[in-house]
Amino acid sequence: MPSKLDQARDLVARANRMIANEGVLDAFGHVTIRHPTDPGRYLMSRSRAPELVQPEDIHEFTLDSHIVKPIEARLYGERVIHGEIYKARPDVNAVCHHHAPSILPFCISGAELKPVYHLGATLGATVPFWDSRDDFGDTTLIVAKPEEGASLARALGPNWIVLMRRHGATVAGTTLEELTFRTIYTARNAAMQIQAHGLGAVSPLNAAETRLAGEYNLRPGPVARAWEYWSVRLDKAEGNWRAAKAKPSRGSRKRPAKKFKRKTR
Amino acid sequence: MPSKLDQARDLVARANRMIANEGVLDAFGHVTIRHPTDPGRYLMSRSRAPELVQPEDIHEFTLDSHIVKPIEARLYGERVIHGEIYKARPDVNAVCHHHAPSILPFCISGAELKPVYHLGATLGATVPFWDSRDDFGDTTLIVAKPEEGASLARALGPNWIVLMRRHGATVAGTTLEELTFRTIYTARNAAMQIQAHGLGAVSPLNAAETRLAGEYNLRPGPVARAWEYWSVRLDKAEGNWRAAKAKPSRGSRKRPAKKFKRKTR
Amino acid sequence: MPSKLDQARDLVARANRMIANEGVLDAFGHVTIRHPTDPGRYLMSRSRAPELVQPEDIHEFTLDSHIVKPIEARLYGERVIHGEIYKARPDVNAVCHHHAPSILPFCISGAELKPVYHLGATLGATVPFWDSRDDFGDTTLIVAKPEEGASLARALGPNWIVLMRRHGATVAGTTLEELTFRTIYTARNAAMQIQAHGLGAVSPLNAAETRLAGEYNLRPGPVARAWEYWSVRLDKAEGNWRAAKAKPSRGSRKRPAKKFKRKTR
Amino acid sequence: MPSKLDQARDLVARANRMIANEGVLDAFGHVTIRHPTDPGRYLMSRSRAPELVQPEDIHEFTLDSHIVKPIEARLYGERVIHGEIYKARPDVNAVCHHHAPSILPFCISGAELKPVYHLGATLGATVPFWDSRDDFGDTTLIVAKPEEGASLARALGPNWIVLMRRHGATVAGTTLEELTFRTIYTARNAAMQIQAHGLGAVSPLNAAETRLAGEYNLRPGPVARAWEYWSVRLDKAEGNWRAAKAKPSRGSRKRPAKKFKRKTR
Repeated sequence: MPSKLDQARDLVARANRMIANEGVLDAFGHVTIRHPTDPGRYLMSRSRAPELVQPEDIHEFTLDSHIVKPIEARLYGERVIHGEIYKARPDVNAVCHHHAPSILPFCISGAELKPVYHLGATLGATVPFWDSRDDFGDTTLIVAKPEEGASLARALGPNWIVLMRRHGATVAGTTLEELTFRTIYTARNAAMQIQAHGLGAVSPLNAAETRLAGEYNLRPGPVARAWEYWSVRLDKAEGNWRAAKAKPSRGSRKRPAKKFKRKTR
Repeated sequence: MPSKLDQARDLVARANRMIANEGVLDAFGHVTIRHPTDPGRYLMSRSRAPELVQPEDIHEFTLDSHIVKPIEARLYGERVIHGEIYKARPDVNAVCHHHAPSILPFCISGAELKPVYHLGATLGATVPFWDSRDDFGDTTLIVAKPEEGASLARALGPNWIVLMRRHGATVAGTTLEELTFRTIYTARNAAMQIQAHGLGAVSPLNAAETRLAGEYNLRPGPVARAWEYWSVRLDKAEGNWRAAKAKPSRGSRKRPAKKFKRKTR
Repeated sequence: MPSKLDQARDLVARANRMIANEGVLDAFGHVTIRHPTDPGRYLMSRSRAPELVQPEDIHEFTLDSHIVKPIEARLYGERVIHGEIYKARPDVNAVCHHHAPSILPFCISGAELKPVYHLGATLGATVPFWDSRDDFGDTTLIVAKPEEGASLARALGPNWIVLMRRHGATVAGTTLEELTFRTIYTARNAAMQIQAHGLGAVSPLNAAETRLAGEYNLRPGPVARAWEYWSVRLDKAEGNWRAAKAKPSRGSRKRPAKKFKRKTR
Repeated sequence: MPSKLDQARDLVARANRMIANEGVLDAFGHVTIRHPTDPGRYLMSRSRAPELVQPEDIHEFTLDSHIVKPIEARLYGERVIHGEIYKARPDVNAVCHHHAPSILPFCISGAELKPVYHLGATLGATVPFWDSRDDFGDTTLIVAKPEEGASLARALGPNWIVLMRRHGATVAGTTLEELTFRTIYTARNAAMQIQAHGLGAVSPLNAAETRLAGEYNLRPGPVARAWEYWSVRLDKAEGNWRAAKAKPSRGSRKRPAKKFKRKTR
């Protein structure tokens, strides 16, 4: 029976590969989760493209982003993005930093990302910007120093996604499943907003709809449905899925499954 | 010899997977058909991404959208979209609700979706909008209550597709094959209309062309040709197709095949 | 040793599948060639999505588009597109009719398709439009009657591609390889022109560049290189290619290979 | 133990296939490297689509672009693009010439390609244009003559990428890995710039950020991470990768690996 830690390592490795398979992560970016039993640590891969991350790549880090057991392999240069958000936000248990092609146009243009359909409502009421120039002047744009991560976490505030000018986005969630849902559907929402803008007008969800639709879509049912979908698609992409041998899914139980409770704090 | 019901369950499960494979459905959305022998029932999957729907996931529902034999697994929250349309439209025997990336920009911007090429003529003379705010104010945008489904069915009226503001689209058809054709080609049409708009002008089909081209393309020949295409593509995607073993298709007979007649009411 | 006719059937079936694999053809559209030994006939599939066309689907037609040996399976409704062009243009030995997503925006908007990079020069000096309304008023938009095909062939004139308003495009070539090259690279050119238009300006090739670059890229070397590329990609898509067993290609000989001469008239 | 030359041939063949697999090269374009032990030679494939290039296709050329050991197969018509740059730039050890769909709109419109996110900073401070009309009037647009290649090399100057009007781009690098990184991420940057332009504004990196971010991302860590990503993706595409048998990568060592030093001059 694998330990909670091993299960968590499997799950976050898988989430990295799922989100990469959906086109939101490429060679760069990362997905982490807070340690399942020690809120003072988080789990992150050593430096490797998310699409390739395996459970054995996942290591423990303190919230100061120091690796607990040093390894020879390179580490991600931007781990403070995650550590500083875990410090600032006790409610957050999963973080994704990405450079999704549909989100970058907002980071480049400064146009406001808005929820334009119900599945994008999970981006929340406000999507703040963060610009490294404000606090740090000219930089490599890489968030590598603790003070840079802390500045980004302040910009995120109580929100769920922050757009980093000329860089990408960082998304937070209370669970890994919620984080995955929000990350992928915010990217889909962004793509649709760009196209709607081309047609002449963008009429977004209002504040009440955003709150109501956001809550609805982050309930266990919708999240489980999307998670299964992306998970099977990953299996197909990795050659681990065959129609003839597909195990019929039991389906999500109407009461929240114990499995999800383990990740909720 | 499988029963009519079992054949129908296979077919609607397959249509879900075919339309998902063509990029029109993702984790959300659904395809249903009216029961082959009881017009007071329809067939729908339990809650599962369309790409994953198998025949054993298909259950019977009354037109009030109550499941005939209760199951433990979750059900789709928006089944009333289908039930209320089957009530309002005795001519309709298949329904698809989706959030296709090429259609959403019209739902977001309020721009009118028009038939811009012959294969898009199947969208019909009029594509109405439905806005949940009109009758229901601020909502989750999810069409879950019978009165919401009924409102949507009224907006659909005698037409074949209704665009739901800030949400997606619902498409109807007299047969599952026609519904599949209309769903996919309306999405292709929408993508072309967006690009043409970018080039400066959209000169659509006129009313007569829309009617004539729509009728032509929904004849058995074109529908069968497209159905075979999407079906084989699904087999390829599911690893159930090999060039060496491809059974030469007998080709569509010039007289309408009995198979299609079973679905026509 | 297969006959010239059998080799031709293999080749045109393959061209259908290659062009479909490159995204230019979907369930609809078709590729034909003039009969290898009888210029009064052409070879075309019975009605089937191009992606699925096999050699046994290829049948002989007179230039009046009557099938030489009647079969039970449906035929393409628009075969006169091909027959009438073969009549009007003795220099043409291959024709493709398609509804490529990147070309349709020009057919919808009336914007002029221009050669914008060297590989698009093969579209030629002039790309005429044809509008069924001009000669025929309101129609199904399907080119089914001989007079409609003849009208389209007159619009094509001495050119290599004609854009059909609200429908698609028809492309001609002196050989099947040239036709394939022109069909695919015109679609690539169109996509780039749409994007360049969005950036604010389209500065196309001038008439001399169009002629010089068009001639250069239709020489045996470039055409063979592209044909091998699309052919191997088709093999990969059909599961008939394995890296480990890849036969090293001998490479195209500097003198035109006999194989290509067979198709040149 | 394979010779340095054989290792180099494997690597440049692989880079051709990797960049093609990422959608930046299609039937046309090429990737070369300077000979590992003789700076007066470079390694290039005979004429073949980059996606298909194998080690046995790689031959040695003088910087005047004459093949050292003549072969019967066709050679690339534009090899002087590479030879002339290797002559003009002793610091350059790898060159890629391509017609990427996201870059061509800039070559067509004359719009300035700018670094819009940190991973695009590798395109450098300046992206010059080259227009064959300036020195040569009306041509085939193919850079085939030594004086044309020399003209292009002059336009490239000390920069890392030159946009060729109505044609494509040529990218240079001090190592093959750097060249691959710059080629792919410049194409990604271009796509994002086009979309940002559509949203109304493009706010690029300033000169200091471009320099700092460019340097950072071309350090061994990021380059190795991206190289592994594209390399495994190529293996997947070629059917040479299975999740179950994936060898756990040792990870990039913190000190620059000897392997990279071999390519650095």
